[in-house]
Amino acid sequence: MVGEDSPVITVLCGDRLPDGMERIEQSATVRYTDDEGLAEALPGTDVLFVYDFLSEALPGAWHAADRLSWVHIAGAGVDPVIFPGIQDSDVVLTNSRGVFDGPIAEYVLGVVIAFAKDFARSLRLQDETRWLHRETERIEGRRAMVMGTGPIGRATARILRAAGMQVSGFGRTARDNDPDFGIVYPSSTLTTHLPDADFVVAIAPLTEQTKGAFDAQAFAAMKTSARFINVGRGELVVTSDLIAALRANEIAGAALDVFDTEPLPADNPLWQMDNVMITPHMSGDVVGWRNTLVERFIENYERWRAGRPLQNIVDKRLGYVPSSSAA
Amino acid sequence: MVGEDSPVITVLCGDRLPDGMERIEQSATVRYTDDEGLAEALPGTDVLFVYDFLSEALPGAWHAADRLSWVHIAGAGVDPVIFPGIQDSDVVLTNSRGVFDGPIAEYVLGVVIAFAKDFARSLRLQDETRWLHRETERIEGRRAMVMGTGPIGRATARILRAAGMQVSGFGRTARDNDPDFGIVYPSSTLTTHLPDADFVVAIAPLTEQTKGAFDAQAFAAMKTSARFINVGRGELVVTSDLIAALRANEIAGAALDVFDTEPLPADNPLWQMDNVMITPHMSGDVVGWRNTLVERFIENYERWRAGRPLQNIVDKRLGYVPSSSAA
Repeated sequence: MVGEDSPVITVLCGDRLPDGMERIEQSATVRYTDDEGLAEALPGTDVLFVYDFLSEALPGAWHAADRLSWVHIAGAGVDPVIFPGIQDSDVVLTNSRGVFDGPIAEYVLGVVIAFAKDFARSLRLQDETRWLHRETERIEGRRAMVMGTGPIGRATARILRAAGMQVSGFGRTARDNDPDFGIVYPSSTLTTHLPDADFVVAIAPLTEQTKGAFDAQAFAAMKTSARFINVGRGELVVTSDLIAALRANEIAGAALDVFDTEPLPADNPLWQMDNVMITPHMSGDVVGWRNTLVERFIENYERWRAGRPLQNIVDKRLGYVPSSSAA
Repeated sequence: MVGEDSPVITVLCGDRLPDGMERIEQSATVRYTDDEGLAEALPGTDVLFVYDFLSEALPGAWHAADRLSWVHIAGAGVDPVIFPGIQDSDVVLTNSRGVFDGPIAEYVLGVVIAFAKDFARSLRLQDETRWLHRETERIEGRRAMVMGTGPIGRATARILRAAGMQVSGFGRTARDNDPDFGIVYPSSTLTTHLPDADFVVAIAPLTEQTKGAFDAQAFAAMKTSARFINVGRGELVVTSDLIAALRANEIAGAALDVFDTEPLPADNPLWQMDNVMITPHMSGDVVGWRNTLVERFIENYERWRAGRPLQNIVDKRLGYVPSSSAA
């Protein structure tokens, strides 16, 4: 039985309803809605669970949030729910920090080896029934530079290092002797240090500072043998500059899981480039991931109900969970 | 100047002459030959350098070896040069142990992640310009079982473990607390333990004991979700049994770098299976590998000239370099 003064939770989920919400439905009024219905569902809502973590509907519906106290997003990147209205409000924002770290780190290691061992060409030769020996590359001793020193970047740095690579990072704050990265260079010095990289990994949160960081100047600074890997956000990259750099052989390849427009439009030339590996925004999505995301929300919801501190509170100015306050 | 009593070295190399032999040519008579010319080149030869490491010509030409004292093979697997004639002789056999360890280990880790993350399907979808999200797998915590506890198997075990997998081995001698494998099961218990494996890696030397070890019974013992990876020798596998197991979905996939007939014939059904990844016997062959193989021979040759013990002497009965006598 849900009492009259029980909280109202709105779940922004579109057509795909989250599983496992029964526990919450026993003690709360739960409204399920999509982008179009959000403004109608928000009045009276205490808690918004953004299960459709790429939805951009919240800014436009924000005017209807009359008693909202907490927004939780079922993703690591909070850029779709960061905008002046929420930044200027007292509404607390939390994310799903941690869920994607290991899966994305494994994906990055996999594409690094796929480039080194020329797997894509092997598969295409196989499709042509062609036996063609080639020489491949080691990953041992090669240098990966990871932009983004949050938990996904750290997990990525650790697994690349474990596999024998040299790793360094780019972050907001420069430091030496970082446990995962060794050296972290300030992101403002990207083009200075990119010439050292064999593999460049973009996994930073999307903020005003990181948007478009990988532009023509950055690609020109990379080795012609370098490969670029984006598992963060498409908007970290100036896509037209990436395409131009690939066409001009300024870099040797790219593995892209995220794009500034998703799904990637069929007429985008990246699809056709044989030194580009495209995956459909799935690098972090292992079997069971959706259940894990719901469990993370429920854990935090039980804290909220009990008046205990929430986990993974986002700094709405920075646009991510600062390390010191992470769960 | 090469003196009249300088040694005679025959290099079995076919059309591809090794680079970097100048140092040796200063102090030895060096004959370059192919499979057909071997029997003619062997009389008077002191040292045979089998640069074409897959050549099967030596047994048939053995009768012409009238003063041979040492055979060195530019590969890790010595099966093409193991036969009764050499086993019963005093000729010393050495191999190129160590050159392929790291490259093959990286390849195995790469195909493990490629299976877990469904890279092959992503590439084929990309070729169709199709954006299709799927859920993928972790490798962390998954169990790899590696048949073969020589240096390549050990390097493979180490890198898989470093990437978060559980690893155990199959070898000639059972043991606990192995530094790389933890537990090594005796190869005779293969089918007993294969049900534990998510990934099965074949990297054993080809001997009478290991030939055909992966047969219908072995594949039937594996999980239906298991993937089989062969970086050892094609003859470790009963190929028709592997094809049948893949067709019957007794296992989920295979990555094959070696085959009982190479190049793999165009009419072999493995080419067409979309859960099979075929590479043309190149998993260990990184840029510079041929030079490294020549350098290894030259190092050993200088030991031989100086009367010092040779490195990597093969036990001709076992068919590999026993760990205790390895360089």
